[in-house]
Amino acid sequence: MSLPHTYDWEKLQSFCREVFIRAGVPADRATTVAESLVQADLRGVESHGVVRTGIYLKRVEKGMMDPHAEPTFVSEHGSTALLDGSNNFGAVVGSYALDMAMERAKQYGTGVVGVKGSNHFGTGAYYAKKAIEQNLILLVMSNASQTMPPSGGIRPFIGTNPLCIGVPAGEETPFILDMATSVVARGKIIVSAQKGEEIPLGWAIDKEGNPTTDAVAALEGSVLPVGGPKGYAISMFIDILSGVLTGAGYGQYVNNMYENWDEPQNVGHFFIAVDISRFIPLELFKQRVDLYIRQIKNEPKAPGVKEILVPGEIEHRQTERLKREGIQLPLKVVDELNDIGLKYGLQLSEAAIQNAPVIESSQT
Amino acid sequence: MSLPHTYDWEKLQSFCREVFIRAGVPADRATTVAESLVQADLRGVESHGVVRTGIYLKRVEKGMMDPHAEPTFVSEHGSTALLDGSNNFGAVVGSYALDMAMERAKQYGTGVVGVKGSNHFGTGAYYAKKAIEQNLILLVMSNASQTMPPSGGIRPFIGTNPLCIGVPAGEETPFILDMATSVVARGKIIVSAQKGEEIPLGWAIDKEGNPTTDAVAALEGSVLPVGGPKGYAISMFIDILSGVLTGAGYGQYVNNMYENWDEPQNVGHFFIAVDISRFIPLELFKQRVDLYIRQIKNEPKAPGVKEILVPGEIEHRQTERLKREGIQLPLKVVDELNDIGLKYGLQLSEAAIQNAPVIESSQT
Repeated sequence: MSLPHTYDWEKLQSFCREVFIRAGVPADRATTVAESLVQADLRGVESHGVVRTGIYLKRVEKGMMDPHAEPTFVSEHGSTALLDGSNNFGAVVGSYALDMAMERAKQYGTGVVGVKGSNHFGTGAYYAKKAIEQNLILLVMSNASQTMPPSGGIRPFIGTNPLCIGVPAGEETPFILDMATSVVARGKIIVSAQKGEEIPLGWAIDKEGNPTTDAVAALEGSVLPVGGPKGYAISMFIDILSGVLTGAGYGQYVNNMYENWDEPQNVGHFFIAVDISRFIPLELFKQRVDLYIRQIKNEPKAPGVKEILVPGEIEHRQTERLKREGIQLPLKVVDELNDIGLKYGLQLSEAAIQNAPVIESSQT
Repeated sequence: MSLPHTYDWEKLQSFCREVFIRAGVPADRATTVAESLVQADLRGVESHGVVRTGIYLKRVEKGMMDPHAEPTFVSEHGSTALLDGSNNFGAVVGSYALDMAMERAKQYGTGVVGVKGSNHFGTGAYYAKKAIEQNLILLVMSNASQTMPPSGGIRPFIGTNPLCIGVPAGEETPFILDMATSVVARGKIIVSAQKGEEIPLGWAIDKEGNPTTDAVAALEGSVLPVGGPKGYAISMFIDILSGVLTGAGYGQYVNNMYENWDEPQNVGHFFIAVDISRFIPLELFKQRVDLYIRQIKNEPKAPGVKEILVPGEIEHRQTERLKREGIQLPLKVVDELNDIGLKYGLQLSEAAIQNAPVIESSQT
């Protein structure tokens, strides 16, 4: 059977939400998780999009994630709080943490929330966007299971621990940096391996720790941190704040979502929300951010460069475009989602856009 | 006249302190600045060491920096405060900010202090070490005058805005990451140019924006951000927090310490101090940090790697060694300091270690 490739984002979100509900997830939590996944697809971050529906469901089914547990604040003092996610969905736990960080920031100027007992929490941008809507600056970070060696090492020890930073703007697109601390996403190396192509030196090492341009050898080895020792150090610091400080796992104690079926992941996160108006009037801040962005964008460009971009700009445009044109999913994802739908009596095809314009896949 | 090259760190610090005092700097502030400079030399960060004595004095003499002005807290609410440095020495202003951030952290769990009206504040590690002594985690950042292009640009727009993070450990060396957001320090390119050597591709671009291996062309062009768009984005974010948010300069409005003699620098900084005990008992945290560091250091090593290092470890060892063996200064720096001393009736040679062992210069 030939399935459509292009999906209406709202219908796709409803489909995922309904799948989670029928799998036993309480409705409000199903809403959060589905929103987090579809927003990632809209931003062009397919690796964190609806492709994760299957693995999330599987972890619930196998008892590795508990959608009914109540995330609980273990401590709250002044500007800080510590949240035990109680092994609920990462996006649910992260949303609790964000709400508390924003509340504390409004009361104390900054809100700093550490999180333990969580799971993969989707993209950091999901939280940054919500903080920006509340006129707050947000730093959010998370640890992850082992994929990168320390500088000088040969096997994965730290995760590609992501760092995300969101800043409101006035008329310009808000600044959203959402980066892994690796040189490139592992997904890019997988694509090169599938195509039989070499990868640039510096992306990865083989399992003996030698630099390699062989994508297959790279996948058996480790992804490298961005900027060498600098990326290693930033990733390690994120692990310390998210894991060592909160009581979550860190290093080898953060379990792999795909490979470990004996224990919960015990991921840790760290949220820092800052109330702009404690430092400068909000409107003046937004004017200054706008001016800053415009000045950068007006800088002279290198040969072949059409436009100077600011972090978050590509993803913002992608979101606008995909909301109009639909989200194009790879065949493999369509097949998997379709099977999941059938299991729960739902038709994925009802979320499709019929006669959608042919759009270039952003799946790379 | 042949001058000694190796200096006792305490005597060198006293020499610098006395120079500043005789140049009219109040004694307590002279102490802070001299300590900040010598500590950088001890850590092996010569670019931020006593080599800066001359330029700091010159900016005071030319009325570009005001050692008598009183840094003033413009606002204080809950966990946050905004400091106007009143154009005092960066190290003095930074120390005021740090003290406030630490005080707020003890009271509210986190202390977040924005700073405007400051100058070059030395190394971030200077502040991180003090926070660590108080059992606090510190994030500190600063903007700087223009040296790096945005991704796709061809001329300097953002500074190599540094990020520093300090974390206490138990028995292990504390974690101190203190990095510029450029691939390499500009000083390394200067050395290559002096030696007539090529630089690796990726360090810099020429003034037309083309990648270059020519060190001289690189110096006329721009240093590149670490990790390409990732370093650019982090540097931009540091500029937003340190400058746009605080009311300090940002981008083109941060003046160059060496080139602009019409206006103060108006550098901005941002301090975030975190009270560990709000999240986890301090002793348990230190045990976890120690375990984490030991596990990383015990990882299998790549061919040719003798030891896996943790951020701050090299600098810590360097400090211990140079406290014993003395600080070796390049001839150019010795000459300049000697001249400054003579101007104020002070003998640099009195700070020298006679018959010091010949040690390899770390000046690269």
